Amino acid sequence: MASLTTSQASFVARPSPKRISPRSTDQQVSLSPRDLPSFSGLRAFTRSSTHRRLPTRALAPISATVRASAATDVALVDKSVNTIRFLAIDAVEKAKSGHPGLPMGCAPMGHVLFDEVMKYNPKNPYWFNRDRFILSAGHGCMLQYALLHLAGYDSVREEDLKSFRQWGSRTPGHPENFETPGVEVTTGPLGQGIANAVGLALAEKHLAARFNKPDFEIVDHYTYAILGDGCQMEGIANEACSLAGHWGLGKLIAFYDDNHISIDGDTEIAFTENVGTRFEGLGWHVIWVKNGNTGYDEIRAAIKEAKAVKDKPTLIKITTTIGFGSPNKANSYSVHGSALGEKEVDATRKNLGWPYGPFHVPEDVKSHWGRHIPEGAALETEWNAKFADYEKKYPQEAAELKSIVTVNLPTGWEKSLPTYTPESPADATRNLSQQCLNALAKVLPGFLGGSADLASSNMTLLKMFGDFQKSAPEERNLRFGVREHSMGAICNGITCHSPGLIPYCATFFVFTDYMRAAIRLSALSQAGVIYVMTHDSIGLGEDGPTHQPIEHVASFRAMPNILMLRPADGTETAGAYKVAVENRKRPSILALSRQKLPHLPGTSIEGVEKGGYVISDNSTGNKPDIILMGTGSELEIAAKAGEKLREEGRAVRVVSLVSWELFDEQSEEYKESVLPSEVSARVSIEAGSTFGWEKMVGSKGKAIGVDSFGASAPADVLYKKFGLTVDAVVAAAKDIC
Amino acid sequence: MASLTTSQASFVARPSPKRISPRSTDQQVSLSPRDLPSFSGLRAFTRSSTHRRLPTRALAPISATVRASAATDVALVDKSVNTIRFLAIDAVEKAKSGHPGLPMGCAPMGHVLFDEVMKYNPKNPYWFNRDRFILSAGHGCMLQYALLHLAGYDSVREEDLKSFRQWGSRTPGHPENFETPGVEVTTGPLGQGIANAVGLALAEKHLAARFNKPDFEIVDHYTYAILGDGCQMEGIANEACSLAGHWGLGKLIAFYDDNHISIDGDTEIAFTENVGTRFEGLGWHVIWVKNGNTGYDEIRAAIKEAKAVKDKPTLIKITTTIGFGSPNKANSYSVHGSALGEKEVDATRKNLGWPYGPFHVPEDVKSHWGRHIPEGAALETEWNAKFADYEKKYPQEAAELKSIVTVNLPTGWEKSLPTYTPESPADATRNLSQQCLNALAKVLPGFLGGSADLASSNMTLLKMFGDFQKSAPEERNLRFGVREHSMGAICNGITCHSPGLIPYCATFFVFTDYMRAAIRLSALSQAGVIYVMTHDSIGLGEDGPTHQPIEHVASFRAMPNILMLRPADGTETAGAYKVAVENRKRPSILALSRQKLPHLPGTSIEGVEKGGYVISDNSTGNKPDIILMGTGSELEIAAKAGEKLREEGRAVRVVSLVSWELFDEQSEEYKESVLPSEVSARVSIEAGSTFGWEKMVGSKGKAIGVDSFGASAPADVLYKKFGLTVDAVVAAAKDIC
Repeated sequence: MASLTTSQASFVARPSPKRISPRSTDQQVSLSPRDLPSFSGLRAFTRSSTHRRLPTRALAPISATVRASAATDVALVDKSVNTIRFLAIDAVEKAKSGHPGLPMGCAPMGHVLFDEVMKYNPKNPYWFNRDRFILSAGHGCMLQYALLHLAGYDSVREEDLKSFRQWGSRTPGHPENFETPGVEVTTGPLGQGIANAVGLALAEKHLAARFNKPDFEIVDHYTYAILGDGCQMEGIANEACSLAGHWGLGKLIAFYDDNHISIDGDTEIAFTENVGTRFEGLGWHVIWVKNGNTGYDEIRAAIKEAKAVKDKPTLIKITTTIGFGSPNKANSYSVHGSALGEKEVDATRKNLGWPYGPFHVPEDVKSHWGRHIPEGAALETEWNAKFADYEKKYPQEAAELKSIVTVNLPTGWEKSLPTYTPESPADATRNLSQQCLNALAKVLPGFLGGSADLASSNMTLLKMFGDFQKSAPEERNLRFGVREHSMGAICNGITCHSPGLIPYCATFFVFTDYMRAAIRLSALSQAGVIYVMTHDSIGLGEDGPTHQPIEHVASFRAMPNILMLRPADGTETAGAYKVAVENRKRPSILALSRQKLPHLPGTSIEGVEKGGYVISDNSTGNKPDIILMGTGSELEIAAKAGEKLREEGRAVRVVSLVSWELFDEQSEEYKESVLPSEVSARVSIEAGSTFGWEKMVGSKGKAIGVDSFGASAPADVLYKKFGLTVDAVVAAAKDIC
Repeated sequence: MASLTTSQASFVARPSPKRISPRSTDQQVSLSPRDLPSFSGLRAFTRSSTHRRLPTRALAPISATVRASAATDVALVDKSVNTIRFLAIDAVEKAKSGHPGLPMGCAPMGHVLFDEVMKYNPKNPYWFNRDRFILSAGHGCMLQYALLHLAGYDSVREEDLKSFRQWGSRTPGHPENFETPGVEVTTGPLGQGIANAVGLALAEKHLAARFNKPDFEIVDHYTYAILGDGCQMEGIANEACSLAGHWGLGKLIAFYDDNHISIDGDTEIAFTENVGTRFEGLGWHVIWVKNGNTGYDEIRAAIKEAKAVKDKPTLIKITTTIGFGSPNKANSYSVHGSALGEKEVDATRKNLGWPYGPFHVPEDVKSHWGRHIPEGAALETEWNAKFADYEKKYPQEAAELKSIVTVNLPTGWEKSLPTYTPESPADATRNLSQQCLNALAKVLPGFLGGSADLASSNMTLLKMFGDFQKSAPEERNLRFGVREHSMGAICNGITCHSPGLIPYCATFFVFTDYMRAAIRLSALSQAGVIYVMTHDSIGLGEDGPTHQPIEHVASFRAMPNILMLRPADGTETAGAYKVAVENRKRPSILALSRQKLPHLPGTSIEGVEKGGYVISDNSTGNKPDIILMGTGSELEIAAKAGEKLREEGRAVRVVSLVSWELFDEQSEEYKESVLPSEVSARVSIEAGSTFGWEKMVGSKGKAIGVDSFGASAPADVLYKKFGLTVDAVVAAAKDIC
């Protein structure tokens, strides 16, 4: 582990934070304003500007404003850092709730990152080539809000800071990408953010490998993260960092806020491992900044060193004091998650020599930070100009990249989906899913994904591509290893990088339990990840109850903003993919069978899009004697039971309920046309928990399912033993009508 | 990292595997048979026997049978190892399904452990002081079944091997403690087993610290585990191993089966970290056995070295060849999870010189292993004699230990639970929960637990005890750090160690998402862990939607064999703990509020035990005009709405539905007495997903809840904005009756 011990004092006289600017002098840039390309990544257009952010002071003349602010001395940095601290203190105090400790401790690294190192455009938080910043320790969100505020983001104005944690504000209790432009991903649940950061850095490496040319570095940014002791303890962080090391994500730079305090007190009580050694084992470059409180130059030097290491991600372990500046609460858990209290706020003001009132940003600090608006606009203008040149020279690549930067899917993409007839050979939906995946990868430039070490079981390999690896980052098959939780979070990061990146990831359906926290964040943060979940019931057979999902379909039906799809055959599988690809603002889970299934008459893509629909019916006047319902592998059973009952003269409707969420969204008329309220004789069959089926079968109906754990035996035996049979459906139907 | 390179050859002449026996010569033991103590840990009584397993050959005379078998030469070890391999090959072949690769590679370490190192009694798999063995790589269960079979466990006879993975067999597709005596915990989902092993080793260290005396080492065993590359990749394994290092669990010895193959192929594609370095960072002693295929003496020496390190757990990285012996499939993923196929089975028989038919155990192997039955019985007899002496000298400690070894709770323990009246001061159920925890810890000797770094928020500290730490293992407050997933799995291990150990663990309810795989294994493996889950709804307020559970109650109601309890006040919280403690074969989840709640008239412990009950009613003849239902913090709202409607002259029943599972188990008569089917006017209120409530409110009723994600704002604001109000209940009630 490299250790930076240079004292702060030795750097005091040097006014040049720009030495570690992200952009090196060998990049040719144009200063003239250009028309912006008319595609997005540009959700908000920047004001045209001749200002630009300069890599070195020597490179070109800069405006007086920028020059004045660039001449940053230590006193001004201190003042800026204390501004960050007090914005956090004051916002938490006003809310009477929140986490002041981290912002007070991490303000110095936050300042260096946002004021000196990162390239971004405050007026267009979605500018494609920005550096990404992730606060994995999301409870410290006032750090991020303060930085966005100082940098000039419209999403965090003074009134937003003053309404921290209040109803309707853009400054919620943890960072939320869907509330606050400038926040890249939603964090708070610990460990998620660093895994997201791995996904963002993966996306950058992948896109750079695909689209950069010897004469055009069109994709080129860093991903920075701050994580704390809590993140470090979470298993997901180790998973993700193991992958980051394996993939050699050299442009990922993570600050580990080593403050020795977590909620329960000193980390000595539960966390005494050597994090640096562990990260060396994971293949990271590790640097220790011993003075994270005031050692600005140590921080700068660490970032410079990190950037020089191209083939490994870097962990900057940075020792800080939680609640730095609070005379009575610093370095204790009491400053972690509560307001300081009026008395301690006053004491901290005195202690840090802060004469200003709440929420005050001193003029010199404001003026210093003011340059980021013109500089950011210039950075984007410059990149746009470069892109325009790139587009001329490489029109095809430019079109592909555009479709990734934006979310404009190629016209007619859905026509690539395979089609099936009842005569097509029976097959497992996991195999049919693979046909869809491979069809989509041909037409969707941003389609990529993989499995948690089950590619050959989940059937998720894209045959026309190789494996994304350190030495082959342009490829699209992601090999996550047995790391379900980080897989989900990495995919969240990938799709949050660029809206046209459409990641899928796969494991056995039962192992959604390992990654549920990441899946929930897909749903909450509107990240349209596609979860390819095979082996979706006791139908997987001999692996037994540890591997057999029971409650999983129900558990996701209860989760907001996620589509739970359980297709029955090839047509429904194609339909499920159509829905999943189109839903870029909510994730989809596809539950797929291990066992072979026939292609059923009556299934349709349009039906899947409605979530529930009639696949066969011999009744008239919307008045069947009985309605049979099924999903996935059991729709076949419902269909066969329907035939049997019809042979006995009954008017039977068979309904596929492939996605309850989509069905719920249909008009009342449509729903009534599928499930007329006056027909109370209803039987459902699904190889999983019956929990929730009362909604569909009503109080007089009967739900056939599995409400205990499964067992280890061949699938056909299990279906019989658990009563998932045509006879059982027929008997239940006769019982109630 | 120490490396054992001693060649096998140099050990060939030495017939003394006993050199690394777990029991040292300085332990005084009696050879005379004794009456067995009449308490269990002894679910099956052993036959009395004068045989005993000897720590060294010099210590005492042993019977001819035992001596003959002890004179093990390398040829016989080879033969025993190949027996294990072929039992696995043959069972998988017959089942046409399973995982032969791991047993073929791990047979040598399995042999050394079960034949030479571990102390156990095959005829009483529950003998308290046995060494514990965990196959964390549970898919290789045929290794464990073969070893149990050779060792003489009644649970795995030849016919059981022949019915591997079949309906009703005791040899399911992954190891299940509830199916197969001798299997300590249920594994298969990767990473769980090593975390369970940490729990088992913690339990041993804790009990040893509490009950051993200078003259009586009454608790004294090792915990062994085998984990593979897959387990190593899982975050849960890193979490658990970080804790094991922190706690200094010196008697935990884990074999890392380093075979470089996972399902997707060579681990090079996804797993290139340096595991040894990582474990050194985690505070483990690390040994590398380079020849795990035939290096028996390397394995023995590694175990000896591991035992010599008392203050750290040991990872023995043991390099093996997956599918060792298969000429065409060894060292490839194809041998991981499928039967070899007839042709390759034949080729493997030829390659390893195995002339025997399927399932054959050669006579000399059988005879060699035969000694474990008498030796195991002798070990237990000896321990029982020691315990009898201990009991004489330390009757109080002996009684406590008995109540931990068995599951006989002290008479009247439930009287310790606090009682409340409607006049008691309003309080959050998380605080009331702490009163219960502290009351229970006083009367239940096996009660221990803790939080994932939220002790001061979950309110889970036991005030009369200190922290369980490396240097204070007798204490009962467990400090898990921010490691929810391993916390659950460690608790599973603790309760699987001894049935009278009653672990509880805590975090915010939303973070059950991080530990769901472990919670499901509590349910499946009948491990009565108590999950103390606070901050159970949007009522937690400002932390916002990342921290607010919505779908969680529903998701656990759908899970088999688990009790989901959401108590409304002090009395119900006490009732929930009564139920949780009594349910030693199924886990309980207590969802508890952050916000203050009043103590309601009509709540009762007996009511909680029924899961659903009437707390107030002004109707007659079981015919209320309307039934209002609530759980937890919303029962108060239902009660207030009831009062309002009664003021308007309605006959209103208010029902608490604190646990749906318990309510479902009541008689039809009782259920009808609470929710009469002819009353269709029903309104429910619960601050969570309404998914599933149709079952309770019926198709004409109305469920009030939260079906979107929450928001960041004070709790009272959220309740109003999300419509969880008395007025909303009243309005809904009037709407439908």
